[in-house]
Amino acid sequence: MDVPVRLAGRSDCATASAPPCTLVVFGAGGDLTKRLLMPALYNLAGSGLLSEELIILGLDRLDHTDGSWAAALTETMESFTHDATAEFHAAQIDPRAWNWVRSRLRYLKVDFQDSAAYATFGSRLRGNVVFYLAVAARFFGPIVTQLGAAGLLKEQAGAFRRVVIEKPFGSDLPSAQALNREILAAADEHQVYRIDHFLGKETVQSILAIRFANSIFEPIWNHAHIDHVQITAAETVGVEQRGAFYEPTGALRDMVPNHMFQLLCMAAMELPETLQAEAVRSAKARLAEAVLPIQPEDAVRGQYTAGRVLGQDVRAYREEPRVAPDSRTETYVALRLAVDTPRWAGVPFYLRTGKYLATRHTEIAVQFKPSPHHLFAGAAGSNLMRLQIDPEQGAELRFDVKVPGPEMRLGCATMAFRYGDIFPQRPYVGYETLLYDCMVGDATLFQRADNIEAGWAAVQPLLDAWRSGEPEFYAAGSTGPAGADALLGRDGRSWLPLADG
Amino acid sequence: MDVPVRLAGRSDCATASAPPCTLVVFGAGGDLTKRLLMPALYNLAGSGLLSEELIILGLDRLDHTDGSWAAALTETMESFTHDATAEFHAAQIDPRAWNWVRSRLRYLKVDFQDSAAYATFGSRLRGNVVFYLAVAARFFGPIVTQLGAAGLLKEQAGAFRRVVIEKPFGSDLPSAQALNREILAAADEHQVYRIDHFLGKETVQSILAIRFANSIFEPIWNHAHIDHVQITAAETVGVEQRGAFYEPTGALRDMVPNHMFQLLCMAAMELPETLQAEAVRSAKARLAEAVLPIQPEDAVRGQYTAGRVLGQDVRAYREEPRVAPDSRTETYVALRLAVDTPRWAGVPFYLRTGKYLATRHTEIAVQFKPSPHHLFAGAAGSNLMRLQIDPEQGAELRFDVKVPGPEMRLGCATMAFRYGDIFPQRPYVGYETLLYDCMVGDATLFQRADNIEAGWAAVQPLLDAWRSGEPEFYAAGSTGPAGADALLGRDGRSWLPLADG
Repeated sequence: MDVPVRLAGRSDCATASAPPCTLVVFGAGGDLTKRLLMPALYNLAGSGLLSEELIILGLDRLDHTDGSWAAALTETMESFTHDATAEFHAAQIDPRAWNWVRSRLRYLKVDFQDSAAYATFGSRLRGNVVFYLAVAARFFGPIVTQLGAAGLLKEQAGAFRRVVIEKPFGSDLPSAQALNREILAAADEHQVYRIDHFLGKETVQSILAIRFANSIFEPIWNHAHIDHVQITAAETVGVEQRGAFYEPTGALRDMVPNHMFQLLCMAAMELPETLQAEAVRSAKARLAEAVLPIQPEDAVRGQYTAGRVLGQDVRAYREEPRVAPDSRTETYVALRLAVDTPRWAGVPFYLRTGKYLATRHTEIAVQFKPSPHHLFAGAAGSNLMRLQIDPEQGAELRFDVKVPGPEMRLGCATMAFRYGDIFPQRPYVGYETLLYDCMVGDATLFQRADNIEAGWAAVQPLLDAWRSGEPEFYAAGSTGPAGADALLGRDGRSWLPLADG
Repeated sequence: MDVPVRLAGRSDCATASAPPCTLVVFGAGGDLTKRLLMPALYNLAGSGLLSEELIILGLDRLDHTDGSWAAALTETMESFTHDATAEFHAAQIDPRAWNWVRSRLRYLKVDFQDSAAYATFGSRLRGNVVFYLAVAARFFGPIVTQLGAAGLLKEQAGAFRRVVIEKPFGSDLPSAQALNREILAAADEHQVYRIDHFLGKETVQSILAIRFANSIFEPIWNHAHIDHVQITAAETVGVEQRGAFYEPTGALRDMVPNHMFQLLCMAAMELPETLQAEAVRSAKARLAEAVLPIQPEDAVRGQYTAGRVLGQDVRAYREEPRVAPDSRTETYVALRLAVDTPRWAGVPFYLRTGKYLATRHTEIAVQFKPSPHHLFAGAAGSNLMRLQIDPEQGAELRFDVKVPGPEMRLGCATMAFRYGDIFPQRPYVGYETLLYDCMVGDATLFQRADNIEAGWAAVQPLLDAWRSGEPEFYAAGSTGPAGADALLGRDGRSWLPLADG
């Protein structure tokens, strides 16, 4: 049933293992390394997709030896087997795969701000290198600058040197532009892999395939047949211990120009001219640039008050540690977007994301227009396609059928599929694809500078407007502020029920 | 979720009970009355859809009183609770609903060929009457003629007089035309309800709703998007004790111009101008008339030899009782049809039906074209919609998604829904809708003379050609003769696996 499709930059055999390289991890002692990077490497090792010659070189300020770092990571990996809430949760750790990773772990104590250190560890690097920046955003520019100054980004004799950068990438349009300038002064765009882990999720990657590989969906994916699109990323976690990061960030910066825009791009972009990375990224950038700047009247911001989430009492945002008692930071945002392309003429895109909401639920929901036939004007009008990204991974299609019985009545039927029901499922964390792609040089799923800046440009009017005013309050555990309902109500529409995920 | 859609000839309230009438059952002692008619009346009574003033008057040559007929039918109804293979199978019989029916049963011993008898029972009839001809086909013409001669088909003072006729309706085009002439000499077309129980099946009725009430399916249901259509009605029963009927009939006459053409019409007809019965029947007739006469090179006939069906050894057709040892009667037929309308330009329709096949399975399968995008030319091309009619009632949609994992591979995903999962299910036999519709005067699901004759006209070249030659043999329990595969193979296509139902 599986048919391989050749993708950009990949060898003929799509299952080839990645070329030999050294993976340099800045922030080796950090949370991201433990929670996502190591499980991803472990999964890739289990799939046989890594080079036998891979070396994983961890850098951090902590005191560690190769052995103590490996021991600490082993302990964390083991802990996932009894933590069902971890992003990576497995019934057991396959010792063969983990030992494969573990035997390749090396550690160096390094102060990222010390330029002498770069020469020291740089001298150990030969051939292909991926520099993975699992560090706070303020270090992105300085580390890349230092790597460049130390000559570590020079690609010689066919070897690659790549830099993987986590979000947040800037905090508004000017800062994103400045960061791009700083990075691109030291590295070429083709060396920079700006990661958005939403793009590592299977359903997100499958959206292009679903839209364009299927003759049943391709002809109807446009304004002639689609009424509107709803993109939701609802979380049941709060800000909790992350107040210091969240206070100057807020839901808009944290989620919209990056994650939500990636979902928007996948759902709405034109078919790229090829499946080569640059063509895909250009198509995405064109879509992001076609999003009209969002005006304040098309946006709603909210902040959670005390409430009850999943059966637990939780405190208000303003009572979280390291949050100002009169904080105006939004923990929820709902937007109405217009995409200025012929395909989407007149089709609004509604986005919403927030913390401490009633359910955890990320999806793209495409609401089709009612049947054009007046004979069925009384139809339930249920035509809806849901592309479910988290925690379910799958798709659902709602349509009208006759309700059984002697009378002719229409009712709503739902067809669904779950990736897990169809494909043997591994507990992927979503970073596997991104890590592998970076090693094989496929930048398709990474963000190019123009894509990042287009996202910031679209939300910049809100960043400006929201320097004043107050967010609307919503109770933790609710479906968000009333203003979000009013935003759609004004257009005669309503959000899909959050709990109906 | 349910939205009532006003249908032809129905009162404003779609759930109104039928008007008072007398249901006269010719063939009260026969199999059809026991197996289907009584369960259907029982179900309608349970749904409250019958008039309190309904009388069921059974006519037959058997010696019965009202009481003994009712007792015999009660016994049969009870037997269904421990016969899971019956067309009607219920865990228990609701005594309230059955007693409601039972208390309305009357019986008269009548010889249908005795014209004096018509005056006798006719004198008992007042107001609305439905004459239900649950008798052998040779009686259809004579009974209607006698009803007419006795003045029992005269509609006076707003009362209706209707005749329900079972199949087979003719045995070829000339005989069907002759029967229509005979019937229409005594009754007006609006009084004649030619039944095809396939049209009583929920999924068949839902096809129009699925096609036209859904904006996701309506735009792609045509030659621009559909590669071909396969209509299958596979049975696991053999001819067995029905040799006397089957020998002069065969699979073509038994199934194609009636059942298979009804499925074809529902799948392929244009949207009727209204949902009024005459408009729906006109749209169906136009489609049936657009089927080009089927040439022998586009048809394959088969006859089963001894084999093994569902784990039981069974004998060859030629060894069945009352079958000639050198019989040329076909028990299987496969056809390639062309529908000469703009919607279906270049789209072949493949039909197959047969006895003693590997699985019981009736469905319409719509194979969509591959994606037009060369980028996904390697796609599995799985886009397929299956409208499942028997024994499953539901729909399935196959499409391509990305197979999870770091490589981009396409695989086939299936979304499905079952009527039984969505709607509270009653053990309907399929006749309920038809009986109710006849009582309320909705002829939508009944066949008009022109529709019947169009079916026969399309197959007439085969009836002529098959007077000579031999069917191809296939083993009972197989998927049919090799020639059926060659029929599609010639077009570079293949049948969907029969066992994959």
